[in-house]
Order: sequence, then structure tokens, then C-alpha cells
Amino acid sequence: MQTTPARTATTTAPTTTQDAPAVAPRILTGDRPTGPLHLGHYFGTLRNRVRLQADGHELLLVIADYQVITDRDVADRPAEHAENLVLDYLASGVDPERAVIFTHSAVPALNQLMLPFLSLVTVAELGRNPTVKDEIAHSRQSAVSGLMFTYPVHQAADILFCKPDLVPVGQDQLPHLETTRTIARRFNDRYGRGTTVFPEPRPLLSDAPLVLGTDGTKMSKSRGNAIPLGADEDRTAELVRAAVTDTDRHITYDPDARPGVAALLTLTALCQGRRPEQIAEEIGSAGAARLKQVTTETLNEHLRPLRARRVELAADREQLRRILRTGNERANAIADTTLAEVRSVMGGS
Amino acid sequence: MQTTPARTATTTAPTTTQDAPAVAPRILTGDRPTGPLHLGHYFGTLRNRVRLQADGHELLLVIADYQVITDRDVADRPAEHAENLVLDYLASGVDPERAVIFTHSAVPALNQLMLPFLSLVTVAELGRNPTVKDEIAHSRQSAVSGLMFTYPVHQAADILFCKPDLVPVGQDQLPHLETTRTIARRFNDRYGRGTTVFPEPRPLLSDAPLVLGTDGTKMSKSRGNAIPLGADEDRTAELVRAAVTDTDRHITYDPDARPGVAALLTLTALCQGRRPEQIAEEIGSAGAARLKQVTTETLNEHLRPLRARRVELAADREQLRRILRTGNERANAIADTTLAEVRSVMGGS
Repeated sequence: MQTTPARTATTTAPTTTQDAPAVAPRILTGDRPTGPLHLGHYFGTLRNRVRLQADGHELLLVIADYQVITDRDVADRPAEHAENLVLDYLASGVDPERAVIFTHSAVPALNQLMLPFLSLVTVAELGRNPTVKDEIAHSRQSAVSGLMFTYPVHQAADILFCKPDLVPVGQDQLPHLETTRTIARRFNDRYGRGTTVFPEPRPLLSDAPLVLGTDGTKMSKSRGNAIPLGADEDRTAELVRAAVTDTDRHITYDPDARPGVAALLTLTALCQGRRPEQIAEEIGSAGAARLKQVTTETLNEHLRPLRARRVELAADREQLRRILRTGNERANAIADTTLAEVRSVMGGS
Repeated sequence: MQTTPARTATTTAPTTTQDAPAVAPRILTGDRPTGPLHLGHYFGTLRNRVRLQADGHELLLVIADYQVITDRDVADRPAEHAENLVLDYLASGVDPERAVIFTHSAVPALNQLMLPFLSLVTVAELGRNPTVKDEIAHSRQSAVSGLMFTYPVHQAADILFCKPDLVPVGQDQLPHLETTRTIARRFNDRYGRGTTVFPEPRPLLSDAPLVLGTDGTKMSKSRGNAIPLGADEDRTAELVRAAVTDTDRHITYDPDARPGVAALLTLTALCQGRRPEQIAEEIGSAGAARLKQVTTETLNEHLRPLRARRVELAADREQLRRILRTGNERANAIADTTLAEVRSVMGGS
């Protein structure tokens, strides 16, 4: 694990052995507040974040609320969406005493980093970003906003403001992180005078399986195939019962030919820490109805503690807001320190 | 003069008559810190700013230091360039007790406004901006930075953060101000719920004549034809002596046929508050040498108090820094209030 000599955090501890990092490795990750999190998020990233925190990593979770301000679904009640994200984080086991959970719209010094960073990339580079290209291809070019076009630079500010060691990413997000790393490198080259102002954060590639929804395609709120973390036991049973399976009573794990069956097997396997093939074998020829029964029971049992915590936490909205306020204060302290350093190396007045 | 109901300034006074504005009309203007100011700036804008302040306008002067960070001439010592701009403002007569002089790099909440504003313009609109188009045409497209491309949006933040009534502009800057007005309008439409968060600032078109340099073309540092405000009397005499004139001893004001002669006549006329034709008539057939002598004497006499103040002010760099620090604090207070309002109407957390 790389050490972070230029770390802005206030907590430092003496290095006890040559190989031990001076401070806990810092991880920056987060979400756009587009709605309630579901099992795809939970098994894809949330569970892993909790593990990393338990392993001693320092966790910063950015709620990227400025990246959804043109999203009609959430633009009406952004604060509520942000609070619900805090709720899902905490229910999943994130310790708010040790994690920094914040909305980037509340951290002006973070957002200011976008200005010097914008000077380090060209318009041509921004246009080549895969996500931006995708957006341009799917909408009329003229409809792409300046915010969408410059999104990778804003993301670089989201990440670099806290100088993280690691950023958990999926394979498809690697190009974004590469833009961040490029900006860090160019900033250091132009202003660092030999010192590393922004260590290049390394990707932490997720080994989480793709979590399929109740129709056998990638679980996603917009596809209507998601099981929300906040669903109760009856709702979970209902969603699983409505899952798309097939008429072959002999249950096998075959994601290509039987995606719906595979989706339920995978969810069950993830809860039990086993392989989906094992679950299929146990059910044998008992059919899809039995599979759905097993899936429902397993999910409800596995998620019972999380959901109990969630209900309890949801009853105290003021506590969620307080956690967010505290997180915002801590993120501001980090961002202010980083911006002061940036302005100093840039020779600002 | 329009009143400003949504003004963020802390000073408010009751409206005494129906037509009187509730507060002094606020003016936002400023400069990129590219080097010492010269007589083109002085007669073109500086003198007018001082008059507007004397007339009771509230003056905010933004030193746009983030817009020159890729400029090799100034990137080395941005703080020094900013201080020199303060020096030239004060020498010209700007009252630092009443004006707010600030660098935008020191005002995070101002810079954060760029994020919501970027969501209100499209990439196509940004590409159509005349200055950006010009830049793209003159460089290879790939060399245009993200900062240059988004410059009109950053300028909207520079202006709107303080909700000014008026922005002094030259004819060529009108499209920029129109972008700012469009962003204000769109923000109000999307988030205002019937109230005006950002009043559209009105252009205050300059009636200052084009000030020509010592070669008869527009006075500009980069053309090497400028007489700096900070030049002493000998240096001024030297620059005027080297001006490009012609061999016709009969002096006439003919900007098209005799641009060099016209330049000197204009400078003299501006100092004396007369028309250049009158100066030409007085000199008659005494030739270019006499014209140069008159110009030098007139400039040196007119600028004597300004230059004396400038020498005195330049001796106390700490005072310049203190004025800038105070200006930055006041700009931050205004920007913080505006950002809080913006986040509130956007429903931020």
C-alpha cells in the first residue's frame, strides 16, 4: 500500500516499520443520489465498502448531487435523496463515526479545484471521454450540457481533493479514473516543482459479480427489475415471485440461456457465500416456484439485520441530517487545506 | 436605474421616493492580470470607473487571475501581477474603502456557481461564443483548454455572484454579457419559482474613444505601442519621441490617413478634455516634433498626481496586499450569501 506524504488529513501517526503506511489507506468512493439503493449496489459495492472500512481503510463517500441537477427524477427533492443515501450507507454497516459522508455541493473548495483542473485538459480530450461520447451519441449533440461535458474534470475534483490512495471502480469506470490520474500528473508536472501535490490514486478493481435483476438483465432502478434495500419482507417476496423464469422444472445455473433463473441463483449464492451452481443442484427438479421460495427466504434472512437497522435509522431523519452536516464539515476542512496548498503552489494571491 | 430587491449586500436603505434605488447601483468590472495597465486602460475604462464611484455607484473589481493561469507571461508571478493591478486601480483614484477589489481565485463560493451554471448551457452554445470560436480558429482545436472553452460560464459566475446592476462593456464584449444574462434568466426560470434570484445585469456601453498606441494601432501591451501608467516623465518623453508619425509638417486630425499623428492628438485631447481637431489646429504647421513635445508635456502634467500617488503606493506592498485581503474577505461574504441562496432554491442538502 502506498504511503501518502502529502496527505491533507489531520490524523497522522508515526511510521513504526519501514513498510507500514503512515496513515490508514484512504478510499474515495460514492454515488449519484438518483434514488434508493438496491441489491445490485449492495452486493456490487456497499458490502465491499463496509469490509474495507472494517479492514482499517479510511472511507470518504461523496454524494454527487451536482451531477443529478438536470435529472428530472431527483431534481425536485435533492436533499431528501442525499439523506436516503446516508440511510442506505448506514444500514449497510458504514460507520459514520469513521467515514466521511458528504455532498459535493456543500464543499466550495472542492468545486473550485475544477478551475485549475479545466486548464489541464483540452476540449478534444473532453470530447473523447467514453461516457461523454455516449451521451453525445444518444442525445442530440446540442443537448449535451456544459456540466455533462466537463463531468470527468468535476469527478477529478471529487477524488483529488482528499488525495485518496484507492478508488474502487468497475471496469467501465477505468477511463474516468485515468482522466483523474492524468490531471494529477499534469498538475504535479506544472506546479509541483519536483514534489507530488496530488498522488495518483490507484484503481481498486471490483471482483463483485454482476448482479442481475428480476428480469435477468443488469439490476437497475430504471429497468424496474431492482429489489431495493429498503423493501420489506412481503415486498421482497412479491418482487421475487414476479421474476421472469422459465418452464424447465430442472434448475441449472446457465446465465446465457436462463438469465432469470441465474439471477435468482446468484442472489441466493451471494447471501450464503456459496456458488450459484451449488444452489441449483440442491433445488434440482423442484422448479422455479421452489427457487423463488428459497431466494425469498434467503434474502429476507440475510437482510433482516440491515433492514431492522434501516427502519430504526429512518425514524430519525434529524440524525441523518446531522451525520451529513458533520461529514460536510470534515470534507470542507480537507478541501480547504488542499485548496490552500493548490493556491500556494500556483503562486496565488 | 433599476432597483435590486434580491441584492445580497448587507447595506440596505428604505426607498424614499418611488424612483430612487433602494441601494447604490452596483457595478461589476475588472481585468485579467496580464501586466501593468497603460493609457489605453486608463482612458478606456479606469477613469470612467473612478467617475462612476464618485457618482455613488458601488464598485466591485474582479482580478480574473484564474483566466491567465495558462498564460506564460504571467503564470510565474500571479500574486505580483494582482498586486500591481491594485496599485494601478488605486493610483487612478479608485477608493479602496468603498470599492471591493478581489481575485476570483480567492473566492470559492463564486467559483462553485460555475457548476449549476454549466448545467444551463449546452456544448453547442459554448462552441458558438465568438471569443472561444476565435481561439479555436487561431490555435489548433485540440489545444483549446477546458478552461478557455468554459470561460463565458466562469465569467457569468464572476458577474452574477454579486448581482450587479450594471457591467461596463465594450461593443465586442456584449456577446459575453449576453451569455451571463441568459444564464441568469435560465436559472431564475428553473429554480426561482417566480422570484428573481439573479437580476439580469445591464450593459453599460463605454463611450470612451479607441485609444491608439505610439504606432497608430490600438494601444496594447502585446503590440509594444503602449505607454504604461507607471512610466515616469522621462520614459514617457522617450516613448512619445519614438512614436510613428509622418513627414507632413502641417498637423491634421485624420485617423485613417495619419493614424500615428491622430494617436498623439487623441491622447493630448483626452488629457485636456478637448477635441483632437482643436489640438491639431493650435499646432498648425509646427510639425510632428512640436506635436510630440505638446503630447509629452500634456501627458506628464495630467498624469503627475496619479504617478505621485502610484510611487507612494508602490513603496508599501504590504498595504496593497492588505487591501486585496480585505477585498477578498468582502467578496467571500457576498459570494457565501449568494451561494447559500442558490443552494436553498435548488433544494440542496
